[in-house]
Amino acid sequence: MSEMPQKRELLYEGKAKKVYATDDPELLIVSYKDDATAFNGLKKGTIVGKGVINNRMSDLLMARLEREGIPTHLVRELNDRDTLVKRVAIVPLEVIVRNIAAGSFSKRYGVAEGAVFYRPTLEFSYKNDELGDPLLNDDHVLALGLASPEEVAVIRRYALEVNRLLREIWKQCGVTLVDFKLEFGRLPDGTIILADEISPDTCRLWDSQTGDKLDKDRFRRDLGGVEAAYRQVMGRLNQQL
Amino acid sequence: MSEMPQKRELLYEGKAKKVYATDDPELLIVSYKDDATAFNGLKKGTIVGKGVINNRMSDLLMARLEREGIPTHLVRELNDRDTLVKRVAIVPLEVIVRNIAAGSFSKRYGVAEGAVFYRPTLEFSYKNDELGDPLLNDDHVLALGLASPEEVAVIRRYALEVNRLLREIWKQCGVTLVDFKLEFGRLPDGTIILADEISPDTCRLWDSQTGDKLDKDRFRRDLGGVEAAYRQVMGRLNQQL
Repeated sequence: MSEMPQKRELLYEGKAKKVYATDDPELLIVSYKDDATAFNGLKKGTIVGKGVINNRMSDLLMARLEREGIPTHLVRELNDRDTLVKRVAIVPLEVIVRNIAAGSFSKRYGVAEGAVFYRPTLEFSYKNDELGDPLLNDDHVLALGLASPEEVAVIRRYALEVNRLLREIWKQCGVTLVDFKLEFGRLPDGTIILADEISPDTCRLWDSQTGDKLDKDRFRRDLGGVEAAYRQVMGRLNQQL
Repeated sequence: MSEMPQKRELLYEGKAKKVYATDDPELLIVSYKDDATAFNGLKKGTIVGKGVINNRMSDLLMARLEREGIPTHLVRELNDRDTLVKRVAIVPLEVIVRNIAAGSFSKRYGVAEGAVFYRPTLEFSYKNDELGDPLLNDDHVLALGLASPEEVAVIRRYALEVNRLLREIWKQCGVTLVDFKLEFGRLPDGTIILADEISPDTCRLWDSQTGDKLDKDRFRRDLGGVEAAYRQVMGRLNQQL
């Protein structure tokens, strides 16, 4: 049993997480909050218990992905809200994989929510709150120097493989994986690994039978039953993994 | 000398052009207007003599591109404002090639105008006024069924080759080709050819010495001397081609 890592300097406080240094320069502690924001911070609120669920779900899913060959930042869960992770330099891209039209895709291109793509659709946004996380294509990624062509290729491959694995896991839970956002980071030696989180904050999850939304859209769109939805998907995943 | 084609039914009236049927179902007449719009139609005005210049310039440049191996819709110029072109089904993509950061790129990604890309940057927008011509990536083009993967590859190749040729032509005129928009169309047999126009309405052209803008940005940004700028670039091109 290794020594319990301690939170040192608060390095970053985001919308849903705090990140702390530890005594090991290669390790960080991520601490999940119940705070929720939407529409680039315009809407704010609290989803009671969300931090505990997101911490648990993200760790369960990352551990599974790791076993399936996707390198992730996960080291180990420390407690209900805290997880020890590898320190990375985040690649400033929001990597979005879509199986079904929804959200910003539907709005941007005038496509009804629920339209199924014949194959997964991948998109990058520039992770930059001030600019509103604008969409970009591969040429833009290179022009802005956000990632190298080799990194873009690795990220694309991992993202599609993560989609294949997560779809299967959620399918077994009676949940349809509509779309999700990933972030990747660079280890000191340049290796690209999966970072950030995988949770109902970052995935659209629809009940496969009823089509009910079981994710953060319940908060974004004031649909009610937000906490219940988070507990629902967490419960189903616990039974499967 | 072939018979003079006549304008029949008005098929389309856009911001800067009218398109007429002719007695030959495979041919259309494009008629260039002096009307100018910007910001998706929010700003409207007139640039006296623009139609004559755009008609002439586009025909000169398309003829040159055609000789260099780029298939275009150009058949022949009929008079000051009218050109006979091949009828195509327009691929609903605005194909934008950028050599230097400017306009929507600079605004979207917070990059100063004038930053030179180390290689040309290509982007597609969905040609759809109602949606505001949103940016899209290759996956979106396929998901929305706007073009096939093969068509996207051909369009990309042609667009970059057009950029190479136009940069050289404009350089000889003392003009820097900053960026430009192309549209492509499908002939009845599916062949992709260059359509629409190439003019100061669709290109950013900066004087290579002074950096003066010699294009529609003078109208968009109320810089004055709009007509003089159009005449200036046309005059320089006439001396070269």
